[in-house]
Amino acid sequence: MYSIAIHGGAGAVSRQSLSAERERQYRDGLAAALDAGYAILEKGGSSLDAVTAAVHTLEDDPLFNSGRGAALTCDGAAELDAAVMEGRQLRAGAVAAVRHVRNPIELARRVMEKSRHVLLVGSGAEEFALEEGLPLVPNAWFRTEERRAQLESERSGRPVSDLIPSSQGTVGAVAIDSAGDLAAATSTGGMTNKRQGRVGDSPIIGAGTYAKNGVCAVSATGHGEYFIRCVAAHHICAAVEHRGCSLQEAVHELLHEKLRELGGTGGVIAIDRSGRIVSDFSTEGMFRGARDSSGSRQIDIYR
Amino acid sequence: MYSIAIHGGAGAVSRQSLSAERERQYRDGLAAALDAGYAILEKGGSSLDAVTAAVHTLEDDPLFNSGRGAALTCDGAAELDAAVMEGRQLRAGAVAAVRHVRNPIELARRVMEKSRHVLLVGSGAEEFALEEGLPLVPNAWFRTEERRAQLESERSGRPVSDLIPSSQGTVGAVAIDSAGDLAAATSTGGMTNKRQGRVGDSPIIGAGTYAKNGVCAVSATGHGEYFIRCVAAHHICAAVEHRGCSLQEAVHELLHEKLRELGGTGGVIAIDRSGRIVSDFSTEGMFRGARDSSGSRQIDIYR
Repeated sequence: MYSIAIHGGAGAVSRQSLSAERERQYRDGLAAALDAGYAILEKGGSSLDAVTAAVHTLEDDPLFNSGRGAALTCDGAAELDAAVMEGRQLRAGAVAAVRHVRNPIELARRVMEKSRHVLLVGSGAEEFALEEGLPLVPNAWFRTEERRAQLESERSGRPVSDLIPSSQGTVGAVAIDSAGDLAAATSTGGMTNKRQGRVGDSPIIGAGTYAKNGVCAVSATGHGEYFIRCVAAHHICAAVEHRGCSLQEAVHELLHEKLRELGGTGGVIAIDRSGRIVSDFSTEGMFRGARDSSGSRQIDIYR
Repeated sequence: MYSIAIHGGAGAVSRQSLSAERERQYRDGLAAALDAGYAILEKGGSSLDAVTAAVHTLEDDPLFNSGRGAALTCDGAAELDAAVMEGRQLRAGAVAAVRHVRNPIELARRVMEKSRHVLLVGSGAEEFALEEGLPLVPNAWFRTEERRAQLESERSGRPVSDLIPSSQGTVGAVAIDSAGDLAAATSTGGMTNKRQGRVGDSPIIGAGTYAKNGVCAVSATGHGEYFIRCVAAHHICAAVEHRGCSLQEAVHELLHEKLRELGGTGGVIAIDRSGRIVSDFSTEGMFRGARDSSGSRQIDIYR
């Protein structure tokens, strides 16, 4: 038994505003990432490799808010965060505020496996990327015309809308492999019009990303500040481990009680020790997919 | 009823290697910070103001690893992290990898109160400091001769000792005020010989710092990577809130079971809803102090 779930962000994009053509593009992008991760599990690969591959695929797709196509900061740059965690030894790696690393999730993985540290930020993280021989690109490589337009509209006409996560949010993946090992990965460009140097929940272990064998793996998306203050991923994990909550109950409590009390919205994908997948969100939709070894394969956007 | 506890780091400094003169200096530094925080509580001030003042005092003291006197990175610079959180509304602010902000804890406080964000890093955090009119200083201002010697010794003779937290670790404070509001604050220069851009647990909400009214406030010190992977502060908080553990049991489980299983060491100060203070550590000593409205006042280094 093995399974994988992915998300491409939760947000306020309404059913009406999403054209059929655009919806098809999103579904194709989600399917490519889901299948890239699943193919690794199917060959007996690790959940860690599967979530890394799925997130890498979404980073390369300009439709999603991570890697190429990232949301832009208030000064018009792409600034990227990512994290990965494996549940067997609770090893984790994360990077934040990097501007030139083509695939931030690969750098997060190197931080976990090749450094003595868990979180590297800014130019120090890029120095490490160079040492590790990871591809760097000019910042312009990440910036799409659509994201420039989105930033412009935030700046001019809709002064408070930057408090709302952009419709594509983050991207993430959770998986369990045939050895029973859990893993989680998350990557993002953050919120449109964010301050330079702002770090959201994605690269914060326990907030946007967590995995612990025998319990669950979690990747979150939404308004990161609220997820940090709730320590969202660890809240879910602790509820399952110590309070006998089902994963569904734990995710529901986090999204619809804890986060809501603070005024935050977003979504979560999670997977428990038995491979059961939970996807839930308090926004109108969440781009998501799930596939398991029983033959089930689903791509969804709305409820 | 109100109380405050502070720490100036946990570490391997042995009783024998600490001279009487040096011990007196540490005790004086701890007392100054403890009393600065306590004076605010005594005047009916908030726990948030009290922990900020205590940590500010320790940042200014070159004996402790935060602000002036911070441990140095592998390239010889001071790079500072800090966080503050208040338990009534679960508001939090943090900064990481700043090189010129004289008192990082004051910047963390501004992030909480004046920005839409929770965590700012690097030059973006310093841009915000300038906007807020906080004092910036050259990096050399933080660097002491002792820290330069410590870095030199790490680099040459003791290649793995940078895995062990330097004896002064971090600094932190937790408090409860007469209104029953809890708060926590932590500040650090991180580990000696760390990579540029490395962020430890101190500025990670849920790892090194957490506060929730009706439950507890926590500030940790030690080898940060392990505290991040355990989501240490939130683990303690969740154990008290949801499993009926006493604060002492929760802190003990984190330090002597969860952290130990991963191979990490360190210390924690925490305070519960009734103002009861817990200080515990798995290292030889922890610089610490505690004072409450019953008249108790203690400064300790060893068990």
